[in-house]
Amino acid sequence: MVSIEQSAVEQHIVETVVASFEGTPDPRLKQVLQSLTRHLHAFIRDVRLTEPEWNAAIEFLTQVGHITDDKRQEFVLLSDVFGASMQTIAVNNTAYKNATEATVFGPFFVDDAPEIPLGGDIAGNAEGQPCWVEGTVTDTDGNPVPHARIDVWECDEDGFYDVQHRDGRVGGRARLHSDANGEYRFWALTPVPYPIPHDGPVGKLLQSVGRSPYRASHLHFMVVANGLRTLVTHIFVEGDKQIEIGDSVFGVKESLIKKFELQEAGTATPDGRDLDGRSWTRTRFDIVLAPADV
Amino acid sequence: MVSIEQSAVEQHIVETVVASFEGTPDPRLKQVLQSLTRHLHAFIRDVRLTEPEWNAAIEFLTQVGHITDDKRQEFVLLSDVFGASMQTIAVNNTAYKNATEATVFGPFFVDDAPEIPLGGDIAGNAEGQPCWVEGTVTDTDGNPVPHARIDVWECDEDGFYDVQHRDGRVGGRARLHSDANGEYRFWALTPVPYPIPHDGPVGKLLQSVGRSPYRASHLHFMVVANGLRTLVTHIFVEGDKQIEIGDSVFGVKESLIKKFELQEAGTATPDGRDLDGRSWTRTRFDIVLAPADV
Repeated sequence: MVSIEQSAVEQHIVETVVASFEGTPDPRLKQVLQSLTRHLHAFIRDVRLTEPEWNAAIEFLTQVGHITDDKRQEFVLLSDVFGASMQTIAVNNTAYKNATEATVFGPFFVDDAPEIPLGGDIAGNAEGQPCWVEGTVTDTDGNPVPHARIDVWECDEDGFYDVQHRDGRVGGRARLHSDANGEYRFWALTPVPYPIPHDGPVGKLLQSVGRSPYRASHLHFMVVANGLRTLVTHIFVEGDKQIEIGDSVFGVKESLIKKFELQEAGTATPDGRDLDGRSWTRTRFDIVLAPADV
Repeated sequence: MVSIEQSAVEQHIVETVVASFEGTPDPRLKQVLQSLTRHLHAFIRDVRLTEPEWNAAIEFLTQVGHITDDKRQEFVLLSDVFGASMQTIAVNNTAYKNATEATVFGPFFVDDAPEIPLGGDIAGNAEGQPCWVEGTVTDTDGNPVPHARIDVWECDEDGFYDVQHRDGRVGGRARLHSDANGEYRFWALTPVPYPIPHDGPVGKLLQSVGRSPYRASHLHFMVVANGLRTLVTHIFVEGDKQIEIGDSVFGVKESLIKKFELQEAGTATPDGRDLDGRSWTRTRFDIVLAPADV
């Protein structure tokens, strides 16, 4: 369809732009911008982008920019729904032996979550069905990792993280440490599905392509230990129908889907805690950390 | 470097995201978003984008969004300095026989510029060295195009378009029509180089890669005639050293560089106009319009 002459004209533009970055002092910046130029132009040429479509793209990005503030990061959402966040995670956390897989970090981590003892409860001011979580932290040779720092965070039963309530409450998050044998355990809330913020341009985009804004139910983990690769991941709930529908940010990996076993009201708890006649769930997540240098 | 297993993991993410757009009701939107997904992921994988680099990109786009308002369009600048605007123009204005080449539209066109008669002056409230511009409008078979609508616009001698002064002034722009023989002529200002707005994130980016924010001196044209393809272009000034340094938005095409002949003060003008002892320039631009349907 595109003539040889036309193709040469277009390729000449690409080479001119690539050459314009040739004098970039930082070699990595040069590499990234030249590659970005080639891929961006390849996209425009492949789809034969029209001028009205170019205008629509500028207008869309302008809207994304205008809704973004200190509390709302629509560019992260945009990256998420195109799987660019997940791809970046994948590129930087290459599979290594039996190491636990990573997934998206998300915007709701808080660095100074309350410290709890092993077996403590992360719920704080968050409501939801109690969930017992236990497991071990080991390296890829099966050696226990004692005193690994474990951050966990999740939304409440209404699908909101504490920070989204904007009233200063703290709940559904904590920091704890594995014991001398690499074991850990805590009370959390059974994860529920929730939509990413979808009242902005990214939400409109999802609607126009018929995609659900919902994330599959999950519980976030970040695990840090000396000499080992930091792991940022979630566990997902086996049987959650949103896994089939599709996680809006593509965070689900088969190996991260765990059984959350429903325990009828009155079932004895592992630590003898009295749940006041409520039902609860329990799950197990054995964490395997790769060496730091892979 | 990337193992087969790792590559499979990354490719699986690409295919999952592409599949998520499969239900898009509008087939063109589906095509564009699926292609964008493939190219975006190819970029991330090619450069092995790091997580700090991803963060820097999000922060950069956030800044671009925040400086953009009704009067300042930093996303257009961003598209311009990556040559994406010029590539879009190229894709939509394929070379056709001897038709005049198109170039970037730019952000400074105004739809209701003052109408002037043939031989009139577009300067209005803009200062600069007078410049006589003349030429013909023909189709690609050499037939004159009578009564073609010609919009022309340019910056003043300080490098600012009238709208950039934000005081409501009008100058350096007009609309005129070719005569019954397809000929046109008008007084303008000799074009001067000027920088694109470079006090924002795009300007910082250009600085970090050692690129000039200046555009090569030019005079904008938009030519509209029944049954012919609308032409949006500029003419550039032969010998302008910014052409060698590089036009910041990649608008220059060899065929659009014209001689602007300097006329010493006192040289007789084509229409007998008295220029009050000032020097002036003259140029010729013969415009050839492609058929509307190519």
